[in-house]
Amino acid sequence: MTAQKRGLFVVLEGGEGVGKTTNAAFMREYLENKGIEYSATREPGGTPLAEELREIILAPREESMAPMAELLLVFAARAQHIEHKILPVMEQGQWCLCDRFTDATFAYQGAGRDLGTSRVEALESFVQAELRPDCVIILDAPVEIGHQRARARAELDRMESEAMTFHQKVRDAYLARAAQAPDRYEVIDAALPLVEVQVNLAKVLDRLIDTWKNHE
Amino acid sequence: MTAQKRGLFVVLEGGEGVGKTTNAAFMREYLENKGIEYSATREPGGTPLAEELREIILAPREESMAPMAELLLVFAARAQHIEHKILPVMEQGQWCLCDRFTDATFAYQGAGRDLGTSRVEALESFVQAELRPDCVIILDAPVEIGHQRARARAELDRMESEAMTFHQKVRDAYLARAAQAPDRYEVIDAALPLVEVQVNLAKVLDRLIDTWKNHE
Repeated sequence: MTAQKRGLFVVLEGGEGVGKTTNAAFMREYLENKGIEYSATREPGGTPLAEELREIILAPREESMAPMAELLLVFAARAQHIEHKILPVMEQGQWCLCDRFTDATFAYQGAGRDLGTSRVEALESFVQAELRPDCVIILDAPVEIGHQRARARAELDRMESEAMTFHQKVRDAYLARAAQAPDRYEVIDAALPLVEVQVNLAKVLDRLIDTWKNHE
Repeated sequence: MTAQKRGLFVVLEGGEGVGKTTNAAFMREYLENKGIEYSATREPGGTPLAEELREIILAPREESMAPMAELLLVFAARAQHIEHKILPVMEQGQWCLCDRFTDATFAYQGAGRDLGTSRVEALESFVQAELRPDCVIILDAPVEIGHQRARARAELDRMESEAMTFHQKVRDAYLARAAQAPDRYEVIDAALPLVEVQVNLAKVLDRLIDTWKNHE
């Protein structure tokens, strides 16, 4: 019996209103057409317990949430998600397609909430050990565009209802993360017409599929 | 205007069935009789959000909880509790009487769940900075006694329903913590008749009150 080739861990990131939902659906369809087995999941969430924590993290509430509590809750949900979903999926040889992961924590809690990079980094190694995404795809658009799109939807959650300066910090943090490790990040201009965004996503996926298939 | 003298932070700890509830009630009554203003709280919990997390931490569930997720949830609740309750209470000059705190995390998650001391210590400094209890009172009894008492009650939560070896590790960890810092810990033999336990508790409280009153 030969060992199963481990699936790739591909994360889709981006601020509010950049078209994450639409483009995640496109990515799933594209991989299906290419015959790649995958499991799609999201953060915070991805297991019943982690989804309960997602509710707590995102629900608007009267009691303000201490930024440190928010950061620890995000990583508690992540610890559960990694052990009960992400690792098992990849070990079965499926790709794990995840809507947000730790880059979102650097962007939202580290930068947006001003908790700083070093605390997020400490928890990242604490909780993830060596686990990092094989590829992080960042859908990027000016915050004004994203904000207009997000407001056009129904109710805003605790993150979406933050001020524009918060969302600008989030965007800047994503771009700074991508610039530091260009081989693991793909920044896609989400202000372009949807069809162009999806052509660019397809190119990224084709490259990942090729590399994965040719890698023993 | 003179600065308000900060209240003491007094924690009551102990394994299952050592009489924590009864003796916490005794301590509150004793402090009231002595004219000490205090606020009683508990962990996990102590604020509406932290109580929601308590539910999640203790409720029996089908999905097993990753030990690291449990540890981070406990500290998430603690971060919220410290910022929204413990510190404000003490800064108002009231004592904060807390049913369990970080020693319980060393005992239950560090020792009971085998997560180890260093991870708990790392999160302790991360979340608490310099905050430590002024006094930790440990109600101590052989695990067989505690287990019999806990089982005589209604439903057991996720911690109470653990095996005897788990509870033995918890007890050993509490005693080891107390031995390392005897000036901050008081171990009270909870296997003695209740009246003797309470005489011993009163002695500890009298000493704390004296020190607090005489300290500028």
